[in-house]
Amino acid sequence: MEKDYFSTRATVRRYDAARQIAPELLESILTRAMKAPTCGTMQLYSVVVTRDEAMKEALVPLHFSQPAAAGADVILTVCADFNRFTRWCEVSGANPGYDNLLSFTSAFADAVIFAQQIVTIAEMEGLGTCYLGTVTYNADRISELLELPELVVPVASLSLGWPVEKGEPTDRLPLRAVMHEERYRSYSDEEIKALYAEKEQRDDNRRFVEENGKRNLAEVFTDIRYPRGLNESVSKMLLRHLAAKKFI
Amino acid sequence: MEKDYFSTRATVRRYDAARQIAPELLESILTRAMKAPTCGTMQLYSVVVTRDEAMKEALVPLHFSQPAAAGADVILTVCADFNRFTRWCEVSGANPGYDNLLSFTSAFADAVIFAQQIVTIAEMEGLGTCYLGTVTYNADRISELLELPELVVPVASLSLGWPVEKGEPTDRLPLRAVMHEERYRSYSDEEIKALYAEKEQRDDNRRFVEENGKRNLAEVFTDIRYPRGLNESVSKMLLRHLAAKKFI
Repeated sequence: MEKDYFSTRATVRRYDAARQIAPELLESILTRAMKAPTCGTMQLYSVVVTRDEAMKEALVPLHFSQPAAAGADVILTVCADFNRFTRWCEVSGANPGYDNLLSFTSAFADAVIFAQQIVTIAEMEGLGTCYLGTVTYNADRISELLELPELVVPVASLSLGWPVEKGEPTDRLPLRAVMHEERYRSYSDEEIKALYAEKEQRDDNRRFVEENGKRNLAEVFTDIRYPRGLNESVSKMLLRHLAAKKFI
Repeated sequence: MEKDYFSTRATVRRYDAARQIAPELLESILTRAMKAPTCGTMQLYSVVVTRDEAMKEALVPLHFSQPAAAGADVILTVCADFNRFTRWCEVSGANPGYDNLLSFTSAFADAVIFAQQIVTIAEMEGLGTCYLGTVTYNADRISELLELPELVVPVASLSLGWPVEKGEPTDRLPLRAVMHEERYRSYSDEEIKALYAEKEQRDDNRRFVEENGKRNLAEVFTDIRYPRGLNESVSKMLLRHLAAKKFI
């Protein structure tokens, strides 16, 4: 049965507006997710729960009002957090040194492990979930809204709700594209074409190309979804934000 | 049953040297793990499988020869990878712009989601797993050994094997330490002490303090396990490595 869940799971972006997630269920999911692996038992993460309507009204636009955010019963903002651990060190009279890039990457990994464990447990409970990749695009403004202190940075946002749709599994590359035996094997042009052929030929992806007036699917990504100019301006904001939070 | 798994799971560091993981099982785990959420269906990750004895002999010391690595049947090095996607864009005549910090963080999150999905599926299949946090400490040398190209950086290493021990669940903070309602609530000194009290009073943690001749548990972390000097020197290497891989 677990096999089936993992093979068939799909992201869900539409939720039942009439049905709330019981606070006890959410707490049970989070408590179990905390048993996920964590760097040196430090638990370098926090989660801010957004349920209040006024807070949603402020947070949803920072996720570009995408339907999964606008219709969510609960939005979870999972943060890389070295603040709490640092505070404990200080209160203990110890000398913490976690205002650096290594500490950020450790907390980032910890937070994402925790977020993914939430997703798996929530989905197995029958909830629908969706990562809101937009968290990075407005990391600074989300930090401000949620009043995140130093050494706390939002890294994964999740919308949760009872599903009103069965999510459609999206396309995946063949395993040989992702798995390397012993050493990374770089691909020839022909191999790359073969690995992405099935993806390009899917009806949904062909429709994206047509609707956007592009020559091929790669251009939908490079020109529309994740263009260089946007990537570079967000990168600058991120760098400033990490410095403001004292991670670099 | 899933509830029980998530509540009781534990990292396993000792494996049965006489029992190998069948290649078909590993491929099945990786194939299912690829159904985990991924940024814009881009699958910004790769995994290098280390099974060969000569490669293990070279890789294990880069993980400081910790027992979980030395005794592993298989070591998986999960990498943030924008190389494959960029190659596809180039082969398609599109103009990729993924040599920046945002792209690194997107790929980092994708890789860790994939790694954690591997952990969950592998453990549900009865395997023991352990994250090797050491991957970051020698990211540059691991990259070199595994011949990782530009836009590929190792971010999560996992040891896998059939367990010869039942892992002991490690301590976790109470949920209220990690979960914030609507806004991040900063802690008073007294609150911090209360949140970490149970952790400090555990027998295993009291033993660490005593064995290391420290005044308290926080000092075991700040002076021995994760000291400032080490964090800062690894951070410098990481920054150089990200630049060498063209992510910054």
